[in-house]
Amino acid sequence: MDTTTETVTEIMRFVDLGGVLANAILGGIAARSARLDIVGFVILAVMSGLGGGIIRDTLLQQGPPVALTDPAYLVIAIAGAVIAFFVPFRGQWSNRTLVLVDALAVGFWAAAGAQKTLDAGLGWLPAIVMGIITAVGGGAVRDILLLRIPRIFGGNTLYATSALVSSVEMVVLSKLGMPTLGSAVALTSGAVLSLLARRFG
Amino acid sequence: MDTTTETVTEIMRFVDLGGVLANAILGGIAARSARLDIVGFVILAVMSGLGGGIIRDTLLQQGPPVALTDPAYLVIAIAGAVIAFFVPFRGQWSNRTLVLVDALAVGFWAAAGAQKTLDAGLGWLPAIVMGIITAVGGGAVRDILLLRIPRIFGGNTLYATSALVSSVEMVVLSKLGMPTLGSAVALTSGAVLSLLARRFG
Amino acid sequence: MDTTTETVTEIMRFVDLGGVLANAILGGIAARSARLDIVGFVILAVMSGLGGGIIRDTLLQQGPPVALTDPAYLVIAIAGAVIAFFVPFRGQWSNRTLVLVDALAVGFWAAAGAQKTLDAGLGWLPAIVMGIITAVGGGAVRDILLLRIPRIFGGNTLYATSALVSSVEMVVLSKLGMPTLGSAVALTSGAVLSLLARRFG
Repeated sequence: MDTTTETVTEIMRFVDLGGVLANAILGGIAARSARLDIVGFVILAVMSGLGGGIIRDTLLQQGPPVALTDPAYLVIAIAGAVIAFFVPFRGQWSNRTLVLVDALAVGFWAAAGAQKTLDAGLGWLPAIVMGIITAVGGGAVRDILLLRIPRIFGGNTLYATSALVSSVEMVVLSKLGMPTLGSAVALTSGAVLSLLARRFG
Repeated sequence: MDTTTETVTEIMRFVDLGGVLANAILGGIAARSARLDIVGFVILAVMSGLGGGIIRDTLLQQGPPVALTDPAYLVIAIAGAVIAFFVPFRGQWSNRTLVLVDALAVGFWAAAGAQKTLDAGLGWLPAIVMGIITAVGGGAVRDILLLRIPRIFGGNTLYATSALVSSVEMVVLSKLGMPTLGSAVALTSGAVLSLLARRFG
Repeated sequence: MDTTTETVTEIMRFVDLGGVLANAILGGIAARSARLDIVGFVILAVMSGLGGGIIRDTLLQQGPPVALTDPAYLVIAIAGAVIAFFVPFRGQWSNRTLVLVDALAVGFWAAAGAQKTLDAGLGWLPAIVMGIITAVGGGAVRDILLLRIPRIFGGNTLYATSALVSSVEMVVLSKLGMPTLGSAVALTSGAVLSLLARRFG
């Protein structure tokens, strides 16, 4: 592995785990608004942060979800629950940081889900669909567990578009033999579109 | 494969994919009544049309769901979403056609789910249960995603009976070495009972 | 297998299937309160009694869920639905019995889920999480299907604590090479805490 690839891999890992943390905290904030106790915080944080990847891995059937086999994921998701339980997150700056990290993660997760589906030998259409599921699944599960119609189903089109665009870019660049570039492009465009979605969506 | 078997196989494929299209359109119509945007149409159409088979394949663990490996399914389900998005489906004739195709599909899906469960080496009782899940799962998921108690849980007994009867017929005739006859009988009786269910259920 | 191990195994089987029956009946009682018909009774009973184990086995991906491969589970769950359909369960004694059996089952299921996760080669943290999911998953699915926020998410902390403590005990004693003792300790402490939860939770 040359230095560039290594750097890219490290950035990806950082974005991935950062996204888990941000989404876990968002799950914890949703738990507070529903007046749940610490148990509810942990369950919603874990499902928000890891739900998309768990659905993807359960469908691909390549073994237990990476959320269970890579210890970092559960630790970070539970940490997110504990942080959300003790920190009120009322300040504008903390919320902006969460939104930024979440936006970065949407593009990355879409790309990672699409790539993993291609690696499992499936076609480009399932790869795009699975990319979107990976990116938005955790938030959708969080909404359903709180008996809300998932925001992604309506009124948040740009957010879904961000996941779609990132998945498509990844599939195209991966098919052209440039998966690392695919991840980088998907991450960037996903982030830009997600931020637009938060502002105008 | 002799000509009869070939014809039966072709009819089955037609009923299967027709059922996916009809259920996807029904999912899109549900998305309209919940005032969702195109993203919601696609998600509900895919889950309505393919949800039962996805649950079946995830539980049987014989590899990724056929909804992902056979390209026709996703294409047709997404096409159903697009059709439902642009066509209002207010006329009585179009609704009757949807109901008829859906009724045909319930019997076929129950039989297919039961047979696949037997093929996986499981017993007759799981086969019947999985047949029912395959047939009614998509509609149940559609209801849950829209925060409705699934219609199948109550007030639609004849519809569930249709799936049950088709599954039982398939298991019996399959155990007697006549799976093709089983599919045909299950499809017919499922259709008759489903149509009665729509009229009187 | 010596006599003690054999006796413990028999007790475990009894607690396991007793827990399925008790939870299936609780599912049926929930179906009655939602005024569902027999179809709803069966679906809620099966999901209540078997849901936790089905989620565990689907995530572990070691083959189809034991709920499908071991015939006793489906038979007992459906029997629970039928019992709940015909027996009103208004008396205090019948309810106390259900609560007691359910309480015994929470500890056992948590231990069994944790052990099965360790057996699949996963670490101690996923094992604890899966133990909790196995123990409380069926009840959570039952609540979601009836459009209630799962009780386990809030206001029932001691019940979740019971599943957590049982999972931790099992993981510790299993890692120390004493899985049978782990099951026994987990079952006992789970039962004590669950009963406290029902009384004070």
